Amino acid sequence: MAQNIYLSNYELEEAIKIFFDKISPLNQKREVIPTWEGSGRVTAAPIFAKISSPHYNSSAMDGIATLSTKTHGATDRNHILLEEGVDYVVVDTGDPIPREFDSVIMVEDLIRVDDKKVKIYKSAISWQNIRPIGEDIVETQLIVPSNHKIRPVDIGSIIAGGVNEIEVYKKPVVGVIPTGTEIVEPGSELKIGDIIDFNSRVFSAQVGEWGGIPNRYGIQKDIYENIKSTVFKASEECDLILVNAGSSAGREDFTSKVIGELGEVFLHGIAIKPGKPVILGVVNGKPIIGIPGFPVSAYFIMENIVKRLIEAYQGIETRERRVVKAVLSRRVMSSLKYLEFVRVKLGFVNNRLIATPLSRGAGATMSLVNADGVLEVPQSVEGIEAGNEVMIELLKDEDDIKNTLVCIGSHDSIVDIGGDLLHKKRKNFFLSSAHVGSMGGIMALKGGETHIAPIHLLDMESGEYNISYIKKYLPGKKMALIKGVNRIQGLLVKKGNPLNILGFEDLDKEGMRFVNRQRGSGTRLLLDYNLRALGINPENIIGYEREEFTHLGVAAAVSSGDADAGLGVYSAALAMGLDFIPLGNEEYDFAVPVEYLETEMVKSFIETIKSSEFLRELDRLGGYGYSNIGSIVMI
Amino acid sequence: MAQNIYLSNYELEEAIKIFFDKISPLNQKREVIPTWEGSGRVTAAPIFAKISSPHYNSSAMDGIATLSTKTHGATDRNHILLEEGVDYVVVDTGDPIPREFDSVIMVEDLIRVDDKKVKIYKSAISWQNIRPIGEDIVETQLIVPSNHKIRPVDIGSIIAGGVNEIEVYKKPVVGVIPTGTEIVEPGSELKIGDIIDFNSRVFSAQVGEWGGIPNRYGIQKDIYENIKSTVFKASEECDLILVNAGSSAGREDFTSKVIGELGEVFLHGIAIKPGKPVILGVVNGKPIIGIPGFPVSAYFIMENIVKRLIEAYQGIETRERRVVKAVLSRRVMSSLKYLEFVRVKLGFVNNRLIATPLSRGAGATMSLVNADGVLEVPQSVEGIEAGNEVMIELLKDEDDIKNTLVCIGSHDSIVDIGGDLLHKKRKNFFLSSAHVGSMGGIMALKGGETHIAPIHLLDMESGEYNISYIKKYLPGKKMALIKGVNRIQGLLVKKGNPLNILGFEDLDKEGMRFVNRQRGSGTRLLLDYNLRALGINPENIIGYEREEFTHLGVAAAVSSGDADAGLGVYSAALAMGLDFIPLGNEEYDFAVPVEYLETEMVKSFIETIKSSEFLRELDRLGGYGYSNIGSIVMI
Repeated sequence: MAQNIYLSNYELEEAIKIFFDKISPLNQKREVIPTWEGSGRVTAAPIFAKISSPHYNSSAMDGIATLSTKTHGATDRNHILLEEGVDYVVVDTGDPIPREFDSVIMVEDLIRVDDKKVKIYKSAISWQNIRPIGEDIVETQLIVPSNHKIRPVDIGSIIAGGVNEIEVYKKPVVGVIPTGTEIVEPGSELKIGDIIDFNSRVFSAQVGEWGGIPNRYGIQKDIYENIKSTVFKASEECDLILVNAGSSAGREDFTSKVIGELGEVFLHGIAIKPGKPVILGVVNGKPIIGIPGFPVSAYFIMENIVKRLIEAYQGIETRERRVVKAVLSRRVMSSLKYLEFVRVKLGFVNNRLIATPLSRGAGATMSLVNADGVLEVPQSVEGIEAGNEVMIELLKDEDDIKNTLVCIGSHDSIVDIGGDLLHKKRKNFFLSSAHVGSMGGIMALKGGETHIAPIHLLDMESGEYNISYIKKYLPGKKMALIKGVNRIQGLLVKKGNPLNILGFEDLDKEGMRFVNRQRGSGTRLLLDYNLRALGINPENIIGYEREEFTHLGVAAAVSSGDADAGLGVYSAALAMGLDFIPLGNEEYDFAVPVEYLETEMVKSFIETIKSSEFLRELDRLGGYGYSNIGSIVMI
Repeated sequence: MAQNIYLSNYELEEAIKIFFDKISPLNQKREVIPTWEGSGRVTAAPIFAKISSPHYNSSAMDGIATLSTKTHGATDRNHILLEEGVDYVVVDTGDPIPREFDSVIMVEDLIRVDDKKVKIYKSAISWQNIRPIGEDIVETQLIVPSNHKIRPVDIGSIIAGGVNEIEVYKKPVVGVIPTGTEIVEPGSELKIGDIIDFNSRVFSAQVGEWGGIPNRYGIQKDIYENIKSTVFKASEECDLILVNAGSSAGREDFTSKVIGELGEVFLHGIAIKPGKPVILGVVNGKPIIGIPGFPVSAYFIMENIVKRLIEAYQGIETRERRVVKAVLSRRVMSSLKYLEFVRVKLGFVNNRLIATPLSRGAGATMSLVNADGVLEVPQSVEGIEAGNEVMIELLKDEDDIKNTLVCIGSHDSIVDIGGDLLHKKRKNFFLSSAHVGSMGGIMALKGGETHIAPIHLLDMESGEYNISYIKKYLPGKKMALIKGVNRIQGLLVKKGNPLNILGFEDLDKEGMRFVNRQRGSGTRLLLDYNLRALGINPENIIGYEREEFTHLGVAAAVSSGDADAGLGVYSAALAMGLDFIPLGNEEYDFAVPVEYLETEMVKSFIETIKSSEFLRELDRLGGYGYSNIGSIVMI
């Protein structure tokens, strides 16, 4: 067991400074390209016009070119007759003005007499409707400065200024080397322990987005000499190199050694989370970065260091992300050891932007997909309380966030499907969902964090669903229920039901392993209600403490064999090919403050769930009744 | 003379509705591509996970996998000894957890005894540091919805979810057909009347930026059958077609006829300015747009109609531009006939965003290059007064605007050069200049519209430059002068001075044609001062009324032979290869409110103009003295 430990714990800005100081000056390369291929490229020198535009005095209108002195005295009552070839020539927009003329009268102001004669009723003044030489661009004038990212409109002026070739920074070639014996290409037959290489594909896409040219190498198994020779090859072929992963302290983490042997390791370890075990160094004069293997760690290293480097090669100063103020909906704890990046979901509810922290695991790629922004918790701060105002770096367009229907509460796949259809029908609307269980949804409504809350809460006394909970927990708030679906809850078990599980009464059987839902979920309440009714002590159920946040998560645990049974909906069993023991129907509805009922977003959502397309999807998923779907119950 | 007139004057939104109604449903095409090539593409269907990620229970840390029950009781005082192979196996991050173990202890929490033994000082709990199957993504889970523009992070989750091919909308192929007998390719030998085709290059770049594939055809002379056959060919090869220009009412404007004959013209003419003479139609089932020839008109048609169409093919709803509030610095007049788009420069001065209208000519490509935003003046509004708050659609990043040093006043090329160097040195800073003459600069300071004002104003009485004007026009305002350059003013005349012009006294010579600078410019004041001293009546100077806004504009007029002499600086004569009759030195300085002297931007500007690089540029331009450059004179 030969494991390294981290060498350093530099602060992020300090680490960046050390790195950039060590590798500067960057070997920025330049190239000359045709102007019309320049969109998105960055000028390496100022561009001055070589010719004027227009390069001759030209007509700004369709009409006739004439001499202004011949028109003097023309009025509505005193028309002046002009003869073609003598007094005027016909000109179109852009035509040159003959030397003998000094003005243009536009066609709308002419009275046609015959093919060769017109009358005018207004006198013309010198230089009217003429674009003089250089009106737009004067020879030698600066068109765009250096270090300017060229836009389509720039291309127009540059060509108009007679410049057909421009000097731009070359896009840096970025070597991307995935390493690891456990890493396999997408599409490989997966064995236990195999990890699909997606990091190198994400890096390549990021490199492209930031203006670099990704050069991905094949996956390198953990064989020291192979990794070393590939890194050396990349240092010959590329401008900078990314090695993934091999930067943490595991047994086979060679990256640091390879860099040290071929070049120099400047530092290994930065005080950020996720992203700590990064390596910054140089090989063969080329900057090299050892990127952590966890995708979220990798993301923050890419965003905070690699992007800056790729842009620096192109003469671009990296822009700060747009920052907005938001109210934090949950407490965030953090360590004094790190600057922490917390992904958040943003919702614009009740005219406030609400930030809800997402899963903080470094392996949670979906937290990046779902994130609307990032909250930075400084190293000096131990945590931030719920309700505090925080600054969030935006990952999405603010308008899109304002057009997002926030849906926090119980999980069901139909919410995702509904969101997909909503966006398809009304492309400017989005739906964002968070799975915190039915009671979590009620609390989110109470806190003004969500527009709607999907819930399925059985009133143990009345046997009625949802309404009594809303009345109890949201007193004084004008609420309504958008009726959703009837869905069948039951036990999910392995195909063929090998343990012969028949109902709740079998959950404390010897050797039975259960997988539970999280506290506050309607499904958990349903379980607890039935266990109590049957007098079963939860402590006797193996796995009662193991919590999943979704029906699919429960189904996956059963499907993999880690658990023998879990409580969930029929559609999850169907999706994963499990057997299902139905135990009852429940009403899954959407609680909504009355004030939102008339908003475009909620109206569109109701339309969506009533649509035949959505109902077809329910049939496909299976186990849903929808006789009242979309109807409103005022509470 | 067979000229068309505009057929219609639809309002913009009405025209767009008619157009999209007529051409819908769009023939959106789909294709299946590898996931890793999907960055920036738009999903045509929701993407669901095919496998869970992780697909096995895996270690979240480097360390050892063990059974939690074996660790119970371990404390700082009571270490527990564990043996490899018996009590644990060594695992790296991502390694599978053997069935017999249920927790991972990270390497940092181990005390190494020997190669095969460790001690622990903390007990482990079940499932700690284990990533259970599906922790990130559960099989069948929705990863991204349809009509979603794929980002690099999405690629990661999609591959992790086992989806290696995705269905996306095909990028629409957009035919771009430049037409016009006068249109020539960039790089052609230019004759009078030739117009360089840059529009089709701008359109192609825009199409690419919006996700389409441009397919540019060769320039079509104004030969009806040729244009017709090219349009038909494009309708077979492309998804939509742009024809430029031939959409106004000139003699050879065939576009409308061609479209009418091959298909249908829906409308010709929209009530916007610039952009009025657009044609919307269909040929062979493909939408076709006749785009006006003036580049600024073309720009607004591209932005308002073509972008929307190209994005619709990809299932994207066009985003509205960000809008900011700004104070209008000059009155804007507009016609009740049109919705008018006014390009504005924005400056963040004195904590207010100030919008200054740019040149409104439809041929002014530089007004697009220089624009920071667009002010829409509705059809129902005749004008907006200076000082009013207006809404501006942003064309640039708001942060960049806030980092822009605003420099309004007298024109000299050294301002552009200084701006270029400033941005090169401090890549987050920009300089924007407007040429309104020295007195215009003083007024801009008075109105709080500029940070600095380049001026060269001679006090006729004291012979001193600049200071007395600042005192007189900005009383009570704490001002300073950043010393700039001494520059030589003189007469610019044709090479060889054919008219033998020696000084101001020759400007009213018989047959002499002068070109003047605009009122309020220091150069104009210098001219008027000398004319008065010599007793010359301006009315006797031919061309006294012809105003140019820059030294280069004056030089271009002389260079082209449109004028015989103009007053300007030596560097302009040198740039255009003219002869120069020096008539005196003047002091060209930068007036600045004292409060801005300590801002980073002004400090960086002063540093820049003092730098050896800048002084070298002054030498290259010629005619500048700079002994006091960058020193501060408090007023």
